[in-house]
Amino acid sequence: MKRTLAIETVEKIGQEVLLQGWVDTRRDHGKITFLDLRDRSGIVQLVLTGSRLVSKQGETPTTEDVIEVTGIVKDRPAAMVNPKIPTGTVEVEVKTLKIISKAKELPFPIDTDGYDINEEIRSKYRYLDIRRPRMTRNLRLHSKMTNFIRNFLIARDFVEVETPILTKTTPEGARDFIVPSRLQKGKFYALPQSPQQYKQLLMVAGLERYFQIARCFRDEDPRRDRAYGEFTQLDLEMSFVTQEDILQLTEELFTTLVKEVFPHKHIAQSPWPRIPHAEVIKAYGTDKPDLRKNKTDPDELAFSWTIDFPLFTAQSKEDFYYGSGKAKFAPSHHMFTAPHPEDIPLLATDPLKVRGLQHDLVLNGFEVGGGSIRIHQQTIQEKIFDLIGFTKEQKAQFDHMLTAFTYGVPPHGGIAPGVDRLLMAVLGEPSIREVMAFPASSSGTTSVMEAPSDAAPEQLRELGITIVPQKK
Amino acid sequence: MKRTLAIETVEKIGQEVLLQGWVDTRRDHGKITFLDLRDRSGIVQLVLTGSRLVSKQGETPTTEDVIEVTGIVKDRPAAMVNPKIPTGTVEVEVKTLKIISKAKELPFPIDTDGYDINEEIRSKYRYLDIRRPRMTRNLRLHSKMTNFIRNFLIARDFVEVETPILTKTTPEGARDFIVPSRLQKGKFYALPQSPQQYKQLLMVAGLERYFQIARCFRDEDPRRDRAYGEFTQLDLEMSFVTQEDILQLTEELFTTLVKEVFPHKHIAQSPWPRIPHAEVIKAYGTDKPDLRKNKTDPDELAFSWTIDFPLFTAQSKEDFYYGSGKAKFAPSHHMFTAPHPEDIPLLATDPLKVRGLQHDLVLNGFEVGGGSIRIHQQTIQEKIFDLIGFTKEQKAQFDHMLTAFTYGVPPHGGIAPGVDRLLMAVLGEPSIREVMAFPASSSGTTSVMEAPSDAAPEQLRELGITIVPQKK
Repeated sequence: MKRTLAIETVEKIGQEVLLQGWVDTRRDHGKITFLDLRDRSGIVQLVLTGSRLVSKQGETPTTEDVIEVTGIVKDRPAAMVNPKIPTGTVEVEVKTLKIISKAKELPFPIDTDGYDINEEIRSKYRYLDIRRPRMTRNLRLHSKMTNFIRNFLIARDFVEVETPILTKTTPEGARDFIVPSRLQKGKFYALPQSPQQYKQLLMVAGLERYFQIARCFRDEDPRRDRAYGEFTQLDLEMSFVTQEDILQLTEELFTTLVKEVFPHKHIAQSPWPRIPHAEVIKAYGTDKPDLRKNKTDPDELAFSWTIDFPLFTAQSKEDFYYGSGKAKFAPSHHMFTAPHPEDIPLLATDPLKVRGLQHDLVLNGFEVGGGSIRIHQQTIQEKIFDLIGFTKEQKAQFDHMLTAFTYGVPPHGGIAPGVDRLLMAVLGEPSIREVMAFPASSSGTTSVMEAPSDAAPEQLRELGITIVPQKK
Repeated sequence: MKRTLAIETVEKIGQEVLLQGWVDTRRDHGKITFLDLRDRSGIVQLVLTGSRLVSKQGETPTTEDVIEVTGIVKDRPAAMVNPKIPTGTVEVEVKTLKIISKAKELPFPIDTDGYDINEEIRSKYRYLDIRRPRMTRNLRLHSKMTNFIRNFLIARDFVEVETPILTKTTPEGARDFIVPSRLQKGKFYALPQSPQQYKQLLMVAGLERYFQIARCFRDEDPRRDRAYGEFTQLDLEMSFVTQEDILQLTEELFTTLVKEVFPHKHIAQSPWPRIPHAEVIKAYGTDKPDLRKNKTDPDELAFSWTIDFPLFTAQSKEDFYYGSGKAKFAPSHHMFTAPHPEDIPLLATDPLKVRGLQHDLVLNGFEVGGGSIRIHQQTIQEKIFDLIGFTKEQKAQFDHMLTAFTYGVPPHGGIAPGVDRLLMAVLGEPSIREVMAFPASSSGTTSVMEAPSDAAPEQLRELGITIVPQKK
């Protein structure tokens, strides 16, 4: 017999069906036992009487067992109808029962929202934590959201291109993860902090409209809106555009996304406010203001743009560039952001006054994306390298970009919204880990599996590295 | 003025348009010069006379310069119509010309198929190599193909879930890349050879239908159908299914994919032949036979399944498991593949005779995917670990899987076709690198950027590792 999903039972009254899924709840009422069977479509009530409660193997089903039943779908008596669930008008009178896989008692409840459960325990048993309806919903929405984004962009002539994970550092202000090379011992790949250079190279290649739902890696401390180690961003880049084009496309994308994927959410203000950096700092003391009119409304989404950032800030010790050359300037976005055309003369006289063509996307107080118009002229790029104090050697690391700029390069720019962070902000989840399947803990330990872990001596030998003994 | 794409000119006869793009070709005919302007939509002919050939900056456009022109779209004289291109009936009489970005002479031609050009040079200037129409087409088809796959699966209730890149080894027969941890010095992450364990855990989590276009990493020698370092696979897994369900879904997916995305290709035989391993070896001497009827037909696609693989092979020195315990058996697929139910008694008596529920997808002589029904019973999984000779310590590495199997686990299985490899085989490209944007070279050097490269001493100090000086 073909499997029927829980949700499909309502269309099969009087018919015999085969159902497979988990025992969601069990309620014993003397000679009758009710089981709720849960599958990917929802739950349906099973009615078991007498010997039918014992499986062929002689076992009785308990919560979270995986079972297979056959039975007849019946209308429920009027008094028993449950209007809260889509299958609330029916029940299945079980004829045969098979226990496919027994479940031990779970380490924590999964019928609650789970916020109060120790996060390490949730992480260790993530495969059970995901059974929680809230977590299942979040993962489904994640998938729906990325699929919507892809179709939106592909319908507008964008091409999704995969760029390498084993690559070279692009300093973007965070620490790289590095991967020792076996074929070139003593050398290392870096995991990309973003596909910044590759997307610009794809513009030089003439694709004109690129995007990628791209994995990015930063070895920096986690926060509530930043998971440790890796995250996913919608990386998009366009040629022959102005900043206005990027802002409009992004606004249209996320406005239709909210309408289609999160229809119970509403956007506070359209078009989205655009606030120059100096103004937003003055008015709100932050460059990511929370512009909700009613902060207690969980369904209100207040998007805004922060624009007209200064191109440079003073260098701090944390900067990749710190102490190099004679420079005092650090890029406030990154070193490929174009200066405002009106301010180019200031590069020579007062760099801190130069505005950059950067745009940050803000949602309910979170920075959910950033981007810019990029430099596409070799001379300006070199000037920026000088101002941030690149040594000759540091410049040499980016020779390929300067070279690329000599072969006919279109003006281009883009934006990179964080996918998980956006979903977190839209759903009002308290942490980004609530929208990820297997997030790492703050100490960098992975979900379920115990990594990082020891490497085999043979692996290290092949890679030509050794571990430095640490002082206690 | 709003930009007009090359292809749109045919609908704008008599109108003034603004075009932006690259100079594809230049033909001088005395007082008249013809330029073909190329943008993402195709090419259109520009006609320049007299002073209009000189830009505002006093320069004349040459091949691969990025230009912006305004002009009037006109019908071409009948004798000048070029039926080979979609804009062959029109030309644009240029009024103004601006050179946005000058191009030096390119290091190689991009109007050829490029197969004869040194691959290192192509790789170094990949951003130019991609301008080659064949490469642009391949990248566009890659995007179209993955988008088709995603929509096909999402319409069938699949959920795309991202699984970690910084994770723990799942030995799948290849060498891991490892990433030193800064927060837990002396320990290492592994980059996933596939999301094998995560997808099985998502089945335990109750998602029932998961997929991911997933990046996988293997530190093994490249071949024509395998790029060095990383590749992409369509990773899909289903619960409550038989091998038949997986084969049918895959066949439907790729049959409709070919019809929609590669309409000029034709599938040699449907339904696809399913050949038991012993038979295919006997008949063809390989488990990936090339079943094309006419091997000179570049548009013929011969899909087939190889099934009924032996579950085990004898261990070789290359096996992860080699020498551990007293075992002589290596999994021929991987250690999570379920034995054929009829053969379970043979596990105790004659393991090499046990068939596994493995299926390999073959296209024109390439293995383009493999999968299996997985073990979902703790006792059988432990038995397999014993047979492949896991020590207590090795078993402990997979405790989380055995634990997961005690909480109610559905029968499940899947398949993982290689996305790039499939595209290579469908297009008949001679190497997988022809369908990737930025493939690494066989020595592991990345395209365009020079990686792997030196790490800063400070980075190594933070990670607690040092480089072992290599003997020359």
